[in-house]
Amino acid sequence: MTFEFKLHHRDASTSARRGVFLTPHGDVQTPGFMPVGTQGTVKGVTIDQVAQTGAHMILGNTYHLALRPGAETVRRLGGLHAMTRWDGPILTDSGGFQVFSLKGINKISEEGVVFRSHIDGALIDLTPEHSVEIQEALGSDVAMVLDHVIALPALRSEVVEAMERSIRWAKRCQDAATRADQAQFAIVQGGLDEELRVQCASELAAMNFPGYAVGGLSVGEAPEEMYRITAATCPALPENKPRYLMGVGRPIDLIESVARGIDLFDCVMPTRNGRNGLAFTDTGHIKIRNAVHRYDTQPLEPDCPCPACRHSRGYLRHLFVAGEMLGPILLSIHNLTFYQRVMRETRAAIERDEFASFLLAKKKAWGFADSAG
Amino acid sequence: MTFEFKLHHRDASTSARRGVFLTPHGDVQTPGFMPVGTQGTVKGVTIDQVAQTGAHMILGNTYHLALRPGAETVRRLGGLHAMTRWDGPILTDSGGFQVFSLKGINKISEEGVVFRSHIDGALIDLTPEHSVEIQEALGSDVAMVLDHVIALPALRSEVVEAMERSIRWAKRCQDAATRADQAQFAIVQGGLDEELRVQCASELAAMNFPGYAVGGLSVGEAPEEMYRITAATCPALPENKPRYLMGVGRPIDLIESVARGIDLFDCVMPTRNGRNGLAFTDTGHIKIRNAVHRYDTQPLEPDCPCPACRHSRGYLRHLFVAGEMLGPILLSIHNLTFYQRVMRETRAAIERDEFASFLLAKKKAWGFADSAG
Ligand SMILES: [Zn+2]
Ligand SMILES: [Zn+2]
Repeated sequence: MTFEFKLHHRDASTSARRGVFLTPHGDVQTPGFMPVGTQGTVKGVTIDQVAQTGAHMILGNTYHLALRPGAETVRRLGGLHAMTRWDGPILTDSGGFQVFSLKGINKISEEGVVFRSHIDGALIDLTPEHSVEIQEALGSDVAMVLDHVIALPALRSEVVEAMERSIRWAKRCQDAATRADQAQFAIVQGGLDEELRVQCASELAAMNFPGYAVGGLSVGEAPEEMYRITAATCPALPENKPRYLMGVGRPIDLIESVARGIDLFDCVMPTRNGRNGLAFTDTGHIKIRNAVHRYDTQPLEPDCPCPACRHSRGYLRHLFVAGEMLGPILLSIHNLTFYQRVMRETRAAIERDEFASFLLAKKKAWGFADSAG
Repeated sequence: MTFEFKLHHRDASTSARRGVFLTPHGDVQTPGFMPVGTQGTVKGVTIDQVAQTGAHMILGNTYHLALRPGAETVRRLGGLHAMTRWDGPILTDSGGFQVFSLKGINKISEEGVVFRSHIDGALIDLTPEHSVEIQEALGSDVAMVLDHVIALPALRSEVVEAMERSIRWAKRCQDAATRADQAQFAIVQGGLDEELRVQCASELAAMNFPGYAVGGLSVGEAPEEMYRITAATCPALPENKPRYLMGVGRPIDLIESVARGIDLFDCVMPTRNGRNGLAFTDTGHIKIRNAVHRYDTQPLEPDCPCPACRHSRGYLRHLFVAGEMLGPILLSIHNLTFYQRVMRETRAAIERDEFASFLLAKKKAWGFADSAG
């Protein structure tokens, strides 16, 4: 079997799972975090540096890649793997999230969505079948189905309509797929309504996708709402398939969601925050531009093996103050390294059946009150 | 002896020299090229990546570092080596070139120059003694003396005055130096006047500096003028000291100047051009944004070991068109790698007594008519 999810271990006191997702381009240890390569590059980071952070799988954005350089160009350049030289697994989203959130929408119908390119204003059709076709040209290992994403809060009738359409579109994506070396993940919608989420998860589960995502979260709702929905949704998903929480999030969100049964994550936060001078550490955030770091000879984290942590905070601050590219580069790499370390420690804690105490310790170290769990 | 220049071999039919410059932080094989780390970083390139291009020595700009983060900050962060984590030799310029070329000058006198910071407009004094003091705080292996740089063309009387002042300032720098682990290089001035250049070189040679630079060139004059002055100056410099042509230049300028007796170079061209999408190759320039590269699966150069050349030109073009940082990063690394390869091939050609034919072959390959030599 080309794709397989092996569940190695369940944590004794939480819903955390330790597994491995097998793909044609290698194994993804779960829980795992995917760096985001929006336009076919993790911003500011060479592909070797991405690998050195410890990432197993990366994400590409179908919407952005379809506009630039275009699916046909990616195909002629050998697909995303050949183009980026990432030889591990790649997941592509469907384009739906960007189309629905970038507000360039012209028309939504049962057939699909017509939107305007944010680059040149051209009108573009995106149907479930077209999203599959593009993702097959990109050659990702995992393709996401096209879903109908809506902003929250929304009327329950709107949430139901979008959810039901998402299920129909998932079926159309499944029917349109032609590549045996590409797995499709379905996406559970249903807003902040637990009942709808469970219904959606159950209907999609019956369609036997190789993996499932929880979509439409981390769009402005309180973290506790996200945790609540994740906790309600995961039990309705098949045990033997990977579960991916899309676009999430802060380190605390990752481990809170792992505790509720999530296996995979992606988020631009480590790179975006890194570019803006914010570094994640195991004792909280560092705003590297702060004057307090001017003469600081300490690294961001003493035990971090990343190239940023070979330097002093004083030097990193200088790079940001002087507007040097190397500052954003190094903080991006550090943050990606930090996220991977959190995931590695997460996996180890689950294996030891100590995830609950791990979660508590991290919340304390990162400055979060013990409000959820 | 802490600093020593060993002349290994002279080319049979040109003035090219093959040597090694010994410093407290390691050896510099000559002819050699120094990447420029203006503000304590080679723009967009991690220090490991700089080393991987094959560079032996890098350059820092005293003017920029003195303004930001400031010499005292660099000193408190352990000096340039500790701050940048470059453990090889570092050369710092004196600040003179930036002060005289950035046009923030308020007043020039025999004592020194008063200029306005381009960052905050503050008035700053720069004297020969102050330049030495700053460079000692930076902790570079090689410090350049402060010289009086003038724009060309200029009246002969102005050229003479600036040259004579530069010699007096060189003496003041020599007298002010206190660090045994830092060598000072004197700078030959004299505009485009061969007689003045020889006079200046002879006077400075008598002062027994550990190295000599040819300054005030590559400021807009024709390449042939620069070659002519270099050819006239080098014979007046001591054989057993390294010769550094400041701020030069194009690959063709490097090898033409090697043929006239130059050992060391620095230039922002590989990184600046790289950031602008221009790649150097052994068969000429590539403007990577050109549409012709859209579907091009070739690397920039098939035999280049750099991280850019693991990718297709089509991908590199996409990165530039999409405004991704990785484009400038990769082309900067490629160009630095190219410059180091040219220097490595240069050294090998001199060792084989074949530098004249090497020079001809490169000029042909790079699209230059055989007009000089
Ligand atoms: Zn780090
Ligand atoms: Zn290359």
